[in-house]
Amino acid sequence: MSSRPDQDKNLDHIEGRNAVFEALAAGRPINKLWVLSPEGGKKPDPALIKIMKLADEKGVPVTRVPRNTLDKMSDAKRHQGVIALAAAHEYSDLDEVIAKVRSEGRAPFIVICDELKDSYNLGSILRISDAAGVDAVVIPERRSVAVDSNVAKASAGAVEYVPVCRVTNIASTIRDLKDDGFWIAGCDMDGDTTYDKADYSGSFAVVIGSEGSGIRDGVAKSCDFMISIPMTGHVNSLNAAVAAGIVIFEASRMRREGKRS
Amino acid sequence: MSSRPDQDKNLDHIEGRNAVFEALAAGRPINKLWVLSPEGGKKPDPALIKIMKLADEKGVPVTRVPRNTLDKMSDAKRHQGVIALAAAHEYSDLDEVIAKVRSEGRAPFIVICDELKDSYNLGSILRISDAAGVDAVVIPERRSVAVDSNVAKASAGAVEYVPVCRVTNIASTIRDLKDDGFWIAGCDMDGDTTYDKADYSGSFAVVIGSEGSGIRDGVAKSCDFMISIPMTGHVNSLNAAVAAGIVIFEASRMRREGKRS
Repeated sequence: MSSRPDQDKNLDHIEGRNAVFEALAAGRPINKLWVLSPEGGKKPDPALIKIMKLADEKGVPVTRVPRNTLDKMSDAKRHQGVIALAAAHEYSDLDEVIAKVRSEGRAPFIVICDELKDSYNLGSILRISDAAGVDAVVIPERRSVAVDSNVAKASAGAVEYVPVCRVTNIASTIRDLKDDGFWIAGCDMDGDTTYDKADYSGSFAVVIGSEGSGIRDGVAKSCDFMISIPMTGHVNSLNAAVAAGIVIFEASRMRREGKRS
Repeated sequence: MSSRPDQDKNLDHIEGRNAVFEALAAGRPINKLWVLSPEGGKKPDPALIKIMKLADEKGVPVTRVPRNTLDKMSDAKRHQGVIALAAAHEYSDLDEVIAKVRSEGRAPFIVICDELKDSYNLGSILRISDAAGVDAVVIPERRSVAVDSNVAKASAGAVEYVPVCRVTNIASTIRDLKDDGFWIAGCDMDGDTTYDKADYSGSFAVVIGSEGSGIRDGVAKSCDFMISIPMTGHVNSLNAAVAAGIVIFEASRMRREGKRS
């Protein structure tokens, strides 16, 4: 745990060029920006200049600091010359997100992450979800990585655009969604429907399991069906984010084309 | 750079449970195995016991060591209680791989990585390639991450099964492949063919660009066509490994089903 003087539950560090740029561009309230001072002999970095220009437009104060100051402040250890201090990430309300999507005449498409442990995976799934037009990502309050600076960094800024909803119990959220007309698929190596033959139409949610142990039994039982990715190799497993990418993009493609299984 | 006494160009550290298990299972020559000693009060770890049993079957000597010894030896810093010392990774010859695949009556499917910098991405692409039945992964000798312990770890052992070929020049390798009847696609955000409409049949190679800057111009020009993944969000980019997973699995699916664009 960090002992930084600015450590505060309601404040959040955002690190890295994409992450900070997207936070500024999305209009997220930023209290302060620390940017690497020009280093001896090197040209000013164009990406950092672009960020400072945007910060100036948004009225965010910028402090230039040497590299070792940034290194010490960094949580994710990949600041790339810039760290922002922002209000903590605001989670969204799942019911509100669903109501909004339906009010736009669309059927919601939701990704549920069952106890992901790795910030890089949650960040990647947010990035995938943004790119594929997912309406919300659901995570449980406990035994899951939360949206922190590592997740924001790995999401390359997508965390500013994809609503993340925290729920107390994934299995009961799935039951509520089913009562609300959702069709729920779990991703599992032993699933009986291959990902390219599934019906992804209508109000739809896909459940991604945790890195080590996949989807928990109780959660799997509450799904309507399980989908698998056919594999031909020796290792027969994919990183959680890669598997999520393959299934989410196939779902997005089929929904776009109005295809059914 | 490490100053370990066992540092040797012809030797390689393999770290992590999956990576070490798969190296042993694949019959890769292993000189020695270091395994975490049972820690006070904790039960022996079943995954480590499984590895030690396999090492015993293969005649590989095992040394039990305390955690701080493993921490000091670790390159990847994610040893999970086990490190193996093995002969350095042996790269494959691309022509030999292609000849072997054709002798089996199949058309080769190859993935070319243009100057990837991140071990995690190359490892993930090896894992994807194993799972999707890719015949070889090509990397350039220079300005690219090589197959090291970080790549092996991220590949979850797939590095033991997927032939990796190092070539001096990617653009000239592509020209040679074209002369040999290959059809070459580059992955690019601005590609004119979407990934689900491409023709992946026959002798086929797909080029994945580097994390920051994508495929270099000279390499892109030598491709037959460029494929893109349609995106709908704000950030409009995917991690290199996730993008590779989406395209490689779509190619694999279409090749399996004999589909054309």
